[in-house]
Amino acid sequence: MREIEAALGKRSYKVLIDNGLLDRAGAHLAPFARDGRLVVVSDETVWACQGERFLQSLGALNVAPIIVPPGEGSKSWATLTGLIDRLIELGVERADHLVAFGGGVVGDLTGFAAAILKRGCRYVQIPTTLLAQVDSSVGGKTAINTARGKNLVGAFHQPAAVLIDPATLDTLPERQMRAGYAEVVKYGLIGDPAFFAWCEVHGEALMAGDGAARRDAIETSVRAKAAIVAEDEREITGRRALLNFGHTFAHALEAETGFSDRLLHGEAVALGMALAFRFSAERGLCPRTDAESVAVHLKSVGLPTTLAAAGVEADGDRLAAHMESDKKRASGRLPFVLARGIGAAFVDQSVAMEEVRRFLDAEGS
Amino acid sequence: MREIEAALGKRSYKVLIDNGLLDRAGAHLAPFARDGRLVVVSDETVWACQGERFLQSLGALNVAPIIVPPGEGSKSWATLTGLIDRLIELGVERADHLVAFGGGVVGDLTGFAAAILKRGCRYVQIPTTLLAQVDSSVGGKTAINTARGKNLVGAFHQPAAVLIDPATLDTLPERQMRAGYAEVVKYGLIGDPAFFAWCEVHGEALMAGDGAARRDAIETSVRAKAAIVAEDEREITGRRALLNFGHTFAHALEAETGFSDRLLHGEAVALGMALAFRFSAERGLCPRTDAESVAVHLKSVGLPTTLAAAGVEADGDRLAAHMESDKKRASGRLPFVLARGIGAAFVDQSVAMEEVRRFLDAEGS
Repeated sequence: MREIEAALGKRSYKVLIDNGLLDRAGAHLAPFARDGRLVVVSDETVWACQGERFLQSLGALNVAPIIVPPGEGSKSWATLTGLIDRLIELGVERADHLVAFGGGVVGDLTGFAAAILKRGCRYVQIPTTLLAQVDSSVGGKTAINTARGKNLVGAFHQPAAVLIDPATLDTLPERQMRAGYAEVVKYGLIGDPAFFAWCEVHGEALMAGDGAARRDAIETSVRAKAAIVAEDEREITGRRALLNFGHTFAHALEAETGFSDRLLHGEAVALGMALAFRFSAERGLCPRTDAESVAVHLKSVGLPTTLAAAGVEADGDRLAAHMESDKKRASGRLPFVLARGIGAAFVDQSVAMEEVRRFLDAEGS
Repeated sequence: MREIEAALGKRSYKVLIDNGLLDRAGAHLAPFARDGRLVVVSDETVWACQGERFLQSLGALNVAPIIVPPGEGSKSWATLTGLIDRLIELGVERADHLVAFGGGVVGDLTGFAAAILKRGCRYVQIPTTLLAQVDSSVGGKTAINTARGKNLVGAFHQPAAVLIDPATLDTLPERQMRAGYAEVVKYGLIGDPAFFAWCEVHGEALMAGDGAARRDAIETSVRAKAAIVAEDEREITGRRALLNFGHTFAHALEAETGFSDRLLHGEAVALGMALAFRFSAERGLCPRTDAESVAVHLKSVGLPTTLAAAGVEADGDRLAAHMESDKKRASGRLPFVLARGIGAAFVDQSVAMEEVRRFLDAEGS
């Protein structure tokens, strides 16, 4: 078993990674139960696929499952208020732990409910998608969406533990695997060129279900994320902002496609990273060959790297407009994460929206 | 001007108290404005009474006022989501400061919106009721209510500053003044017998509008609250729980009267404190004469000290049932704040609900 510490002082916690860990979840969750009882939040799809296996592993623990509909639509005020009402009915107290068992939607929703129920209770993440395992389950970002944009309402609220079983990916649809893989590649691109090289060699095996490759990729990703979060938990120094590499473009692309199945978050991130590299190359910040290597690798696993491949027809004006309400905007300016090369991302505060607009116009034509 | 520091490390802030401070609010708020712009949240009543005076004091600052309906009903999901939508429309960023200008409802609602907007922005409190000035504006407790109870959803989120002008109390209805005064007396009862003696001497003048008495009472109350919050910001060690003196009874009384105008929060707290003292005396913890002094003083300013005076006809069973969902419950037990005498409150974890039930039955008969 691999064990990684998210070093956050009094809010520190462990991330455990092991193939088959779900079958031993009970032993790891028992310390978080009160009077042998646990409240689990999951979605219909995950619960149908993995609920029974999870319940079996819990043995004598008494589980109250709360099942929400699958998909981004559950990161809403409506689902949140329903969930909170149910948690109050169940008598959840401040010292109690909710268990978020599912992908990023379940984790973000459950974590946010935990952040605000009775001014804060605890929660444990058991992520079941690659995206959640390598990214959203670690670091304490929780949120729901509003009509005006993604993750606009939320809290920084760290989990008490994260349990990752790469074997849960066996039942994950291939498209979801690919989307999660974009975030894996991201860690190479922002700060670890050797890991990007590893991805170029092992990405295909990972996508094909190689257990060791999956576990190694998840471990490297979680270590990178935990280190960055430990340095800048609340996105103040700019260090954590590196994790948004490709994301400013991605959010605009997702907004343009209505945050729908037309373009999954990870697909948007893949395209966003390809765009960030080409934009960086165009500004003379990094070699064009690096931008090409990135696009070639992402494309090789089936991820989109051009607006056309993603089916996005919007021009620069439309996409830039979506960026205006980005929550990272400060003093009216939007920081962009750009790259000086593979593994050398940095935050650039000097990007003018007009440049971004022109760049995206050219990309779209 | 009196200046009190809420010493909370990186989250420290100043509480300024002065008669006429509202007329100089602009100078104090200017550092919190971005590009000369401030977003102010208030309610219809406060805005009608004091909005113009406040706006004049802001001089050249550009103010975007958001006015919510007055009353506890605005501490709701519906008002919160509407407020958040408006704040997003206005382009509020993480480093921006909202200004909560009003009583406890406006402060709790605005503070909670600030806690969760884009995972947290800043806010300044300008409390305009006695209750908010001596209690709710300091300490960072923010919340809304749900159908199942008061303040069940919220966050600990400290303000960046608190500006208190006792002169805003000139237009406060007498019943609201009385209700706020209950929280003033509370600080004497929990830890400062000399201040309770001061209240016995000056309470009447304070209620009649004596500016010096009001300012002194607010200063003593805020100092007491800030000291307790600095010791136990998140209600973990039990120290902050002392501030809930009378409140466990009060919440049950408010629930029984439907959180309505039938019994204001401060009135419920007055009765709750009288009950806590009589319950303490009955358990042999404190002299009966202390319980009597407390009731005599509260009654002398027109606050209710018996179930009959408050118009509450419920029996012990009904009131105890309301306590079951209290958010301070831990491991199924409810901590009660009791007293060994005036100025000597403590948290008692050993109270059995059955005792409380019997006590309340006797009180009601």
